[in-house]
Amino acid sequence: MAAAVVMENEKKSPETEHPRKAFGLAARDSSGELTPFHFSRRNNGDEDVTIKILYCGVCHSDLHSIKNDWKNATYPMVPGHEIVGIVTEVGSNIKKFKVGDRAGVGCMAGSCHSCGSCEQSLENYCPKLIFTYNSRDADGTRTQGGYSDTIVVNEHFVVRYPENLPLDKGAPLLCAGITVYSPMKQFGLNQPGMHLGVVGLGGLGHVAVKFGKAFGMRVTVISTSPKKEKEAIEQLGADAFLVSSNPEQMKAAMGTMDGIINTVAADHALAPLILLLKVHGKMVMIGVPEKPLALPVFPLLMGGRILAGSLIGGMQETQEMIEFAGKHNITADIELIPADYVNRAMERLAKGDVRYRFVIDVGNTLKSA
Amino acid sequence: MAAAVVMENEKKSPETEHPRKAFGLAARDSSGELTPFHFSRRNNGDEDVTIKILYCGVCHSDLHSIKNDWKNATYPMVPGHEIVGIVTEVGSNIKKFKVGDRAGVGCMAGSCHSCGSCEQSLENYCPKLIFTYNSRDADGTRTQGGYSDTIVVNEHFVVRYPENLPLDKGAPLLCAGITVYSPMKQFGLNQPGMHLGVVGLGGLGHVAVKFGKAFGMRVTVISTSPKKEKEAIEQLGADAFLVSSNPEQMKAAMGTMDGIINTVAADHALAPLILLLKVHGKMVMIGVPEKPLALPVFPLLMGGRILAGSLIGGMQETQEMIEFAGKHNITADIELIPADYVNRAMERLAKGDVRYRFVIDVGNTLKSA
Repeated sequence: MAAAVVMENEKKSPETEHPRKAFGLAARDSSGELTPFHFSRRNNGDEDVTIKILYCGVCHSDLHSIKNDWKNATYPMVPGHEIVGIVTEVGSNIKKFKVGDRAGVGCMAGSCHSCGSCEQSLENYCPKLIFTYNSRDADGTRTQGGYSDTIVVNEHFVVRYPENLPLDKGAPLLCAGITVYSPMKQFGLNQPGMHLGVVGLGGLGHVAVKFGKAFGMRVTVISTSPKKEKEAIEQLGADAFLVSSNPEQMKAAMGTMDGIINTVAADHALAPLILLLKVHGKMVMIGVPEKPLALPVFPLLMGGRILAGSLIGGMQETQEMIEFAGKHNITADIELIPADYVNRAMERLAKGDVRYRFVIDVGNTLKSA
Repeated sequence: MAAAVVMENEKKSPETEHPRKAFGLAARDSSGELTPFHFSRRNNGDEDVTIKILYCGVCHSDLHSIKNDWKNATYPMVPGHEIVGIVTEVGSNIKKFKVGDRAGVGCMAGSCHSCGSCEQSLENYCPKLIFTYNSRDADGTRTQGGYSDTIVVNEHFVVRYPENLPLDKGAPLLCAGITVYSPMKQFGLNQPGMHLGVVGLGGLGHVAVKFGKAFGMRVTVISTSPKKEKEAIEQLGADAFLVSSNPEQMKAAMGTMDGIINTVAADHALAPLILLLKVHGKMVMIGVPEKPLALPVFPLLMGGRILAGSLIGGMQETQEMIEFAGKHNITADIELIPADYVNRAMERLAKGDVRYRFVIDVGNTLKSA
């Protein structure tokens, strides 16, 4: 009987596989074009929270996902994992939330809760991690993301959203924020007086600068674009700016940084960046270049330097991050867009034409025709 | 006057630039052939220790140096930085040593003593580090290494050599030993019960296995050579052996290691090794491949993994290492050779034909004709 039920479910359409109606924007194929999509969400279980989505950030990985750049896309796909909204229903076992609360959902919607990583609230490294979209959920259906009107998520993966933090500008923190905050915390790059380098000034980088300053660090932005110097310093509060293609500037800064958050996903030279680090300095990679990077080993050896990777962050850390952001008024610099602008936004994002994050005004503009 | 004196010194020959006669084996050019060489050592200063050299290990970097592989050779060059002998003279300010003591000298003969690295006894990362040979000494002359009868070294760079440790088999610890011990210590890869991978079973790797076992760790050797399995397990005490070219073996061991000491200096694939690491696991590179390695970033991100470099170790750590080795009877597996075998030994070393370190019996066989 159980097998028969599953087979029956598998035959159901996205619109009928769950009992609750939902509406969003979905990509249907690797063209990535997002079009109106009627689908469904599960009933709110005992451990679940239902959120009416008000805002959703547009992360660069949304673009990669809908275009199937990582060869793991399943369509139709509703992207979006920088989700902020209002709680509309809570399960019987829920104590952390009540109806009307502000709540956020990031990249993760489930994990095994029993592995070593889960035990340390490093759910981001759980081998059975369920992503917020384009992932197989515990019931076998596909998860669908935040370019939609509503979402039902296990409480463990919902964060309490600070009262003072704007809902729109804060949405990108659920992915971009935790992605930079976690490595700063995990690798001890959050101590006042330290010198932090931030490579790449985009959605991730500009938030890294803000967290660095809030931690009391000296922050230097390293970028290929000289024209970003003014905004890095005047708008974001960076202390210094290095043009990575300027050998004199790079040489003068050698050996001065305690750590570097490297957000660059394109191919780039690692040695000049590694050489910016002090003895035992750490560079954490949070971008995912498509092809392997060339790693000259000697600059790592000289100075016992460290190159690490980091992916998102755990749930406990995500809650901590958003509270820290609330306390220090850290938000993303955004361009708020209506839902029907999203395909144009993706085109602009592909060209890096955004300062620094698009956020979809889901609550006011996503309408089922 | 001072300038005139320096010029006068610069004109002096190796045999007369210092007051004390010395004899060794030197390379004269990038053929790397080692031939008898009469040179000189400075007088024993107030902070100096003079050592009659009894044994000197043959490190792979000696071969690189005499062949000018690193494009920094100055000839004539007496290599050798795994030096063990007996103290024959101490300066007036020396309290740590007396005549007749066993003493060792490794890769370093001087540093600035005032930089941040020196202050933490990380002299190995001092920007003014003076190497034991092929380096400019504080007085402007070239340093000459341990393939010679005697050496005069600042006390700070001389280690007390444990009474119970054999002089010949212990010599390689002064470079190979500290090169593996320091990263294990610095990166916390020295805790009982941890699982340590050792990549490459040569001069460095076989010592890493012994330290790992002495720390109470589970040690797995990863090698390209299936034929090394028997010796790794039966002779060196490794717990397991993986052939790196065997995908099934490598896959079965994925995510099981707390740390890896990677001794390989040849080009090799990093991803399969990184994937052996647990979440937050660390791979430390201590070999120096000639060309950059291809670094796929995603395996680092998945699991917040760490890739680090490490070069030798500090003096305080070197003393600690040799005492630990004494306590746990850790020595290198060596082939003791007479001085006149050294050119043949270099040929064999180039082919990896040594189990696992040549040590020159300097005291008994290095004779000025």
